[in-house]
Amino acid sequence: MTEPITDPTTASNALARTGADLLCETLLAHGVDHCFANPGTSEMHFVAALDRQPRMRCVLGLAEGVVTGMADGYARMAERAACTLLHTGPGLANGLANLHNARRAHSPIVNIVGDHATDHLAYDAPLTSDIDSLARPMSHWVARSPSADGLGRLAATAVHEAHRPPGGIATLILAADHSWSSTAAAVPAPLPPPVPLPPDDSALAQAAAALKRGPGTVLLLAGRALRAEGLAIAARIAACTGARLLAPQANARVERGLGRVMIDRVPYVVDKALAMLKETTGLVLVGAKAPVGFFAYPGKPGSMLPAGCEVITAARPEEDGLAALHELAARVGAGSAADAAGAGADSAARPFFAARRELPLPSGALTAAAVAQAVVALLPDEAIVCDESVSSGREFFPMSWHAAPHDYLQITGGAIGLGIPLATGAAIAAPGRKVVALQADGSAMYTLQGLWTQARERLDVVTVIFSNRRYAILHGEYVQTGAGVPGANAKRLFDLEDPALDWVALARGLGVAAERTGTAERFNAVLAAALAQDQPFLIEAAI
Amino acid sequence: MTEPITDPTTASNALARTGADLLCETLLAHGVDHCFANPGTSEMHFVAALDRQPRMRCVLGLAEGVVTGMADGYARMAERAACTLLHTGPGLANGLANLHNARRAHSPIVNIVGDHATDHLAYDAPLTSDIDSLARPMSHWVARSPSADGLGRLAATAVHEAHRPPGGIATLILAADHSWSSTAAAVPAPLPPPVPLPPDDSALAQAAAALKRGPGTVLLLAGRALRAEGLAIAARIAACTGARLLAPQANARVERGLGRVMIDRVPYVVDKALAMLKETTGLVLVGAKAPVGFFAYPGKPGSMLPAGCEVITAARPEEDGLAALHELAARVGAGSAADAAGAGADSAARPFFAARRELPLPSGALTAAAVAQAVVALLPDEAIVCDESVSSGREFFPMSWHAAPHDYLQITGGAIGLGIPLATGAAIAAPGRKVVALQADGSAMYTLQGLWTQARERLDVVTVIFSNRRYAILHGEYVQTGAGVPGANAKRLFDLEDPALDWVALARGLGVAAERTGTAERFNAVLAAALAQDQPFLIEAAI
Repeated sequence: MTEPITDPTTASNALARTGADLLCETLLAHGVDHCFANPGTSEMHFVAALDRQPRMRCVLGLAEGVVTGMADGYARMAERAACTLLHTGPGLANGLANLHNARRAHSPIVNIVGDHATDHLAYDAPLTSDIDSLARPMSHWVARSPSADGLGRLAATAVHEAHRPPGGIATLILAADHSWSSTAAAVPAPLPPPVPLPPDDSALAQAAAALKRGPGTVLLLAGRALRAEGLAIAARIAACTGARLLAPQANARVERGLGRVMIDRVPYVVDKALAMLKETTGLVLVGAKAPVGFFAYPGKPGSMLPAGCEVITAARPEEDGLAALHELAARVGAGSAADAAGAGADSAARPFFAARRELPLPSGALTAAAVAQAVVALLPDEAIVCDESVSSGREFFPMSWHAAPHDYLQITGGAIGLGIPLATGAAIAAPGRKVVALQADGSAMYTLQGLWTQARERLDVVTVIFSNRRYAILHGEYVQTGAGVPGANAKRLFDLEDPALDWVALARGLGVAAERTGTAERFNAVLAAALAQDQPFLIEAAI
Repeated sequence: MTEPITDPTTASNALARTGADLLCETLLAHGVDHCFANPGTSEMHFVAALDRQPRMRCVLGLAEGVVTGMADGYARMAERAACTLLHTGPGLANGLANLHNARRAHSPIVNIVGDHATDHLAYDAPLTSDIDSLARPMSHWVARSPSADGLGRLAATAVHEAHRPPGGIATLILAADHSWSSTAAAVPAPLPPPVPLPPDDSALAQAAAALKRGPGTVLLLAGRALRAEGLAIAARIAACTGARLLAPQANARVERGLGRVMIDRVPYVVDKALAMLKETTGLVLVGAKAPVGFFAYPGKPGSMLPAGCEVITAARPEEDGLAALHELAARVGAGSAADAAGAGADSAARPFFAARRELPLPSGALTAAAVAQAVVALLPDEAIVCDESVSSGREFFPMSWHAAPHDYLQITGGAIGLGIPLATGAAIAAPGRKVVALQADGSAMYTLQGLWTQARERLDVVTVIFSNRRYAILHGEYVQTGAGVPGANAKRLFDLEDPALDWVALARGLGVAAERTGTAERFNAVLAAALAQDQPFLIEAAI
């Protein structure tokens, strides 16, 4: 055993080195240096360990949905795990919905969930619950602390598991007595970083053959394949074969905008998805799953593929999608891997890349489309767009192919309440980049507490609330599912009027400056001003 | 099979009668006529069924923690179950923390959790998750819909299980296709209402013997024993035997105030609890569990009882505590059951009952104690006090023995974020009674969305925010757990300053009028005015 990396004698609190210290030292030594937290009594010794480690950036969320959503946004932009600190079963439970989104995004996250001391569990004290069972549905890996000494090895494993491609949720349940007991155990050396599995050769051969058949084949990309490099290779494949490029409906992160590949998504609405895919004879998956309905609807299919469509998995999510694309490009004769970086203006794939196109600013009464238009027109270079606009923002995606280059982050698991925390975490991971959150009002209400963290951390986030004062999507879904026409009880459940939410007051109550407007001209001006400064700002777009 | 109770031909939407209709009709026929809800697409046909049943009162919560917390508050005051309507696994997950509190309170609740259509689950669509595993830790009963036809029988069982003494959480997972499929199945007849089990005779004999030993014996009451009738009998037992009366630290509902029994609680702080119980030689439990530490602390015991203390369970939570008290009173010679109703002024138990005592209004700078004093002085008759004041409100309980008669409802499971929803649900269950919510600021932030429901439903709730701008309890717990003195990271996690929360703005943003004050004189005036009207109002008490 070697000496611990951090000398406990430098601790600001003159206490013996604890299991919590070992855990915290191990997290830092293994590259985890952000802790999104909302602690309670059972986590006090871990907080004390954080106190002795000023290198660990601690970010408080005023509800656990904010905490886990921030960890997701951080992971998507930092490309590594932060840890969360959550208080027993209920604290974890509050964070599960955004962990659900994070697991669908394949975001690496290490959850530290405090539990009672091991001897105390038998008493069934008020906060006792079955944390393991709560954790498993939204985690890829769950383990309990075995002892103070064992926390180094366990933390190392948790970090490793979180980063196992394509990325996942590792939940470490930390008993209070293991946290507070002293230990001399050394910080374990980092495990070799997990690498994606190589794609299967015969699958690649099948995929290349399907791509060569041209227009009837769709190349569906997800995960890292949706960054600029992967998309550029995919564009060359498409240019060379005539195959179509598509992305899933919801994606963790897409690099898009000026100079980047214009890739469309499978639509959310079932009839539109079926129409888009109806001529498809072959589907080649790179990190993606075959498209299915977000929900089931009476009399409509669950798969969005036509009968007889061949499905070929060129790379599973845990496999190296970028390597698969390089290999497919070579096999279809779309140039060597060495060309990939240079793909763009001069390549055969040129029509796939977004060229400059001026979009005027909108005018007149503010609409959802006008909001999208203004954001596209004014978006700064290398902005990060976080989209939980639900039905109101559907026009942003097609409108923004020619916007300034940006990263586009979506809600991936359908659990609303991700948008504000996602933007918060992304801003923490990417200082110097402007974050624009496109946010539906009903969904925003789930985790509005995240605005406070934006204010406290002085984050460069502009939040645009699509204030239509309703769960607009449910009005549509009620009809789509054949439920008829919303009556009195349905309207009581779908509409956010009576009283109207005042987002300017809410934002100010949380320390974020805000303005409400119902005209496009004023929206343009307020957005431009908000983008020009580097503090959080909220615009209530009355649409 | 008999005809359904509701004639589907009267439906406002001219659709075939669905499984959701059968479910909704059964709930109504079995006494469940309140639905606290936040639905999504998979629940649209249940919403359509609600549309055809105007007798079902639908109350929207803007986050599921509000929904389940309202159902808890409703159940505590209405003494019967409401149903919740939650959207798939993440919707349930968001509501679990307050279901945890509700299960600790033994509140009957029927959760209806929508899931994908059965055929759609195999597609692992984005919102798919393991709902059963999420539900079990916080439910006493979990079942999945078997078919549209089977929903009547299943709903009847769910309602029955929720009301099985002492009350519990029944979670019914509703597949979308069972919800939307047509059915002609009849609404089943209500099952016989579940009744508490009779207490065990030999346990009662043991308990009576222990009580007769007098001062060394503590009679610890929980559940229904903490209502006026049970407390009056207990007071006679105590007067006759010299045994002490106590209640657990946290209780679902206690009837207290003028003319009622002054029963103390086991303190939250371990050293105080140990001191209170240190002379105890026998503990008689009526619906209660033996007291344990809320948390474990290094070097401190988990049980609050001294070594050698005999523990006798006179009535388990599922047994009839009131019958046990009547029987114990008879066995110790404290009068017959027939005397119970008349216990009070003329009985030997008189010193246990609160007599009138004038409390002056506070003056000077506002403190937590001044807030408690003003609330006690001004509390209207038959108010409902919902207490999630955490550390700030500890003075209210002893100060309010002589307040006007009131029901006192607490957070029972330690999962903060119950207070505002609890008050909301209690107000819905008890129209005509004033609800006063004593609310810590940090905990309030978890579910502040509940204020909007108070505004929409025009509820008679006054919320007092103890605005100390910190998780004050954690400052204490950091020291109590031996973690040392809070450093920079700890303070970042414990303090709610930078920026300060503006509760007046937050309340107004949610449609609730509000005022902030830092003086006792102004607090007295604002509280009096708020109590005099019947709309929701929030007071930010700057302490």
